[in-house]
Amino acid sequence: MLDYQAPLRDMQFILEELAGLERIGELPGGEDASPDLVSAVLEEAGKFAAGVLAPLNPVGDRQGCRLEGERVVTPEGWQAAYDRFREAGWIGLSLPPEHGGQGLPKLASAPVWEMWFASNMAFAMLPQLNVGQTEALMIAASETQKATWLAKIVSGEWAATMNLTEPQAGSDLAATRMRAEPEPGGAYRLFGQKIFISYGEHELTPNIVHLVLARLPDAPPGVKGLSLFLVPKYLLDDQGEPGQRNDIRCIAIEHKMGIHGSPTCTLSYGDDGGALGYLVGKPHQGLATMFVMMNEARFNVGIQGVALGERAYQAALNYARERVQGRDIVTGEVGLPILAHPDVKRMLVSMRARLMAMRGLLYTAAGWFDLARHHPEAEVADKHRRYIDLLMPVAKGWCTEVGNDLCDEAIQVFGGMGFVEETGVAQLFRDARVTTIYEGTTGIQANDLLGRKILREDAATLRELIGDIRETATQLDAHATLGDLAQPLHDQATLLDATADWLLAHKADTAELYAGAVPLLHLLGIACGAWQMARLALAAEARRADGDDDYLAGLSELARFYMATQAPQAHAHTHTLRHAGGVLSRFPAAAL
Amino acid sequence: MLDYQAPLRDMQFILEELAGLERIGELPGGEDASPDLVSAVLEEAGKFAAGVLAPLNPVGDRQGCRLEGERVVTPEGWQAAYDRFREAGWIGLSLPPEHGGQGLPKLASAPVWEMWFASNMAFAMLPQLNVGQTEALMIAASETQKATWLAKIVSGEWAATMNLTEPQAGSDLAATRMRAEPEPGGAYRLFGQKIFISYGEHELTPNIVHLVLARLPDAPPGVKGLSLFLVPKYLLDDQGEPGQRNDIRCIAIEHKMGIHGSPTCTLSYGDDGGALGYLVGKPHQGLATMFVMMNEARFNVGIQGVALGERAYQAALNYARERVQGRDIVTGEVGLPILAHPDVKRMLVSMRARLMAMRGLLYTAAGWFDLARHHPEAEVADKHRRYIDLLMPVAKGWCTEVGNDLCDEAIQVFGGMGFVEETGVAQLFRDARVTTIYEGTTGIQANDLLGRKILREDAATLRELIGDIRETATQLDAHATLGDLAQPLHDQATLLDATADWLLAHKADTAELYAGAVPLLHLLGIACGAWQMARLALAAEARRADGDDDYLAGLSELARFYMATQAPQAHAHTHTLRHAGGVLSRFPAAAL
Repeated sequence: MLDYQAPLRDMQFILEELAGLERIGELPGGEDASPDLVSAVLEEAGKFAAGVLAPLNPVGDRQGCRLEGERVVTPEGWQAAYDRFREAGWIGLSLPPEHGGQGLPKLASAPVWEMWFASNMAFAMLPQLNVGQTEALMIAASETQKATWLAKIVSGEWAATMNLTEPQAGSDLAATRMRAEPEPGGAYRLFGQKIFISYGEHELTPNIVHLVLARLPDAPPGVKGLSLFLVPKYLLDDQGEPGQRNDIRCIAIEHKMGIHGSPTCTLSYGDDGGALGYLVGKPHQGLATMFVMMNEARFNVGIQGVALGERAYQAALNYARERVQGRDIVTGEVGLPILAHPDVKRMLVSMRARLMAMRGLLYTAAGWFDLARHHPEAEVADKHRRYIDLLMPVAKGWCTEVGNDLCDEAIQVFGGMGFVEETGVAQLFRDARVTTIYEGTTGIQANDLLGRKILREDAATLRELIGDIRETATQLDAHATLGDLAQPLHDQATLLDATADWLLAHKADTAELYAGAVPLLHLLGIACGAWQMARLALAAEARRADGDDDYLAGLSELARFYMATQAPQAHAHTHTLRHAGGVLSRFPAAAL
Repeated sequence: MLDYQAPLRDMQFILEELAGLERIGELPGGEDASPDLVSAVLEEAGKFAAGVLAPLNPVGDRQGCRLEGERVVTPEGWQAAYDRFREAGWIGLSLPPEHGGQGLPKLASAPVWEMWFASNMAFAMLPQLNVGQTEALMIAASETQKATWLAKIVSGEWAATMNLTEPQAGSDLAATRMRAEPEPGGAYRLFGQKIFISYGEHELTPNIVHLVLARLPDAPPGVKGLSLFLVPKYLLDDQGEPGQRNDIRCIAIEHKMGIHGSPTCTLSYGDDGGALGYLVGKPHQGLATMFVMMNEARFNVGIQGVALGERAYQAALNYARERVQGRDIVTGEVGLPILAHPDVKRMLVSMRARLMAMRGLLYTAAGWFDLARHHPEAEVADKHRRYIDLLMPVAKGWCTEVGNDLCDEAIQVFGGMGFVEETGVAQLFRDARVTTIYEGTTGIQANDLLGRKILREDAATLRELIGDIRETATQLDAHATLGDLAQPLHDQATLLDATADWLLAHKADTAELYAGAVPLLHLLGIACGAWQMARLALAAEARRADGDDDYLAGLSELARFYMATQAPQAHAHTHTLRHAGGVLSRFPAAAL
């Protein structure tokens, strides 16, 4: 079994030095989030993750879930862990106090969620749905609906789901067929089938609140005809308690490569007269609300990338420190741990560099969420809202791609023992594989980035971001010890600028441009990572003035390593972006 | 279940146009290998792979193997398939006629093995061991030993294994502890434990012939004290038939992420007085012989990379042609298969380009084996022996890394259905993961490439290879339709030359150099792939003169796509090679 220790020092360094924890604690409504409080929260969460969730992770993998009739049985220990998780108040950590949450900034909750996913991703997917659903209901639900449902969702007394996918409607929600027919009294009856519903059915909570995309009888075709419905597993009785069973059945669960502890359900609605549901928000405007929940989920999937990568890194590092094999390439000495081999050290340093780059980007983005919501100056709030919009596909797409790479590399450090299930790294690798798929594949993220986030606004926000990156590069220009990082970071900014120019100049060549969407996403991810690594090095060097240590020295070297290994890949992606689309457009599909 | 169709046209094109099938058929001893005969063999093999082995692949994955007492039970259908495989004479295809083989060139057998691995890698690992063991015994065994054992191994009547790894001796065979004590009469008794032994125990054949590395009592320490022993599961009786059970026990099998149908055994030798074995070759010189078997195995693992990639590609292509989703990015048309999306087409073309690059390299290398063995001019034979030595770590290391990438990309094409086990691509992804590990990890291959294959001879063979690459680039310079490929290929040659200069100039900085070994391996793999793709395009254009078709046009475009997407990564690897080692050397291990 793999141990897990929350990387508290890394987390706090990034929260404080890169993501502006102090500043965000000072925002209206953020008064409670002092660095000291956040530090205490992280410490407690770290204990819970290491002590309760991590040991259950292999159990969930081995046992998986099973469908017995229409009941879904979750792995042993899931119920007890969920009860403790809920009772400790972890679900409401960053949710609104008026519904029972603790109202901490999103920034403070990001590292906590990293811990949950690192220690037990299959488990943590359950409470994550409550957070997403709360965000969606806060925006679109009526006051009565909020009063009826939110307290139980925020506390975790009831569980939550999001129901989007249907067999013919995966990435393309326009093909959604689930229908909703109005009932006398204002409710609706839903009919249809949803697939790939995480935690769509289980008995961990006395009720499950489904948010479901469906079509009203008068719905226009396409995504503009989708409405959002709240459909509980049990209808509420007069006391607001779960009463009669609603007409929803779990008819299958998937046999998946990973996240075995998380039941992935096929739900059939309305086989017996229709599932009663309630319209949330306006008719035909369900997608916008679902996107709130999905954006929340996408950010969290990005966090899953860094989380699984961190767990894999810890496992690989421990193994590399313990496993004795081979002789020192320089001295010939034997009896050394494999960490002494340059290639093994390369893998571990490379993993750590990318972890810090991802974490820098994700936590900084979490802070942007808070700034967008709470900053009193509209201009500042707006800038950070635009940054989030631009970079959400990168946070999701790039961090999950890199997270997969890290789990892969951890197996490589383990060698044969990595391919054997008992060591636990294989599970991380299998679990991670879903992250570049669900909540929108990397290709979907990349199309979103290119089309809606860059081309639609003629790269305006991207240019603003490039300006910020250049500002950091300029700080490096004059720096006493980090001057060597300046040029590589300027190069990244120049690449991005030139790419923006090229994209806009070729706006008309739609098919060619979109063939380069994924390379573009990688390019922006790498460049943003370089930016964060440069900021990390600047912060580390500033602190080193107070006293030196390996930790801080290591951060600057990590930034150098990142520039030597990741930054050059941005050039390769740029080349691909410019040159592959043309070949692709004329490639005869018959020759595939 | 995934279908599999052997890509006969691709295979034959590469055999004939790149790997010189005709020339190799004309070598002494190669008279039978006419292109027509080889074509007939490939067709038959393709039917066997598609009809017999491919349908068993998911069965092996689902059922796996189990240990019952000391018996290993293989999946249902394994026995019948093995009997048919053996009876059809597939095992001896390229093995010596004097021991019952058919003596076809290695070049002719390479695509056949690709088919076996593509259709059912876990199964094909069994007969592959017979081929490797035959090669080893041909070199080192006495005439009596050959007469006793080889016919049964070549026919597949008995199975074969290679026993290297021990718990403390994985990549580092110097740590081997298994001991062999001389018996009166010339035999030895072996004591110790071997782990990770593929097909170390099973009942598919009436006997299993183990080749085992062990130490004699007077052995010097390290790898120069390893001797090789042939140790049968059943000792032979007076008629040369399996008689008394030898003192070897299977005490465990591994629970692995993939290749479930292949039992990975822990074998305990000598718990009951010692396992009787016979010395093969001279004392203390076992490693050199085992390396013959291992080199054979390494080449075949490279073939596994392209094989699993091909199967994954076929699955992804079929899915992309059938799955309807989304709207055309240019026309807005709905109802199109996802292959119409630029990003999906990008993934498929990218997969196919890399498949052809790998296949070009591997088949060409298979031809080099034959030239090295059979070419009447010593100089020509020697050149190709050196090419094989140089590029074997690339054939194994790079092709398996890329093979993994292709299986990963196939899952991405499938989206959510790729993460679900039922579609079968998940199995390919899990199976492939072992290929960058066993028979020497990518790091081990890279160290071999850098140290023994490049530095030790001051890059002499590498320079010769660069010369060949430049020659192809020069052909492109003057080409009517492929001139655009010339510069990218010249660039690859220039990168390699500059890298060779740099490596030699920094020969003293051992630790720094070895930190760049894996990037170097990728660089050489990409460059060799570019070389093969250029040769492919030249051959395709030459044939197009006879008449045009999508297939040939596609090959040239694949070469262009490769240059646009893979070739630039060679620059990134070069940058990393030069700049990462210094950072790594001074990176404080305490900061990991």
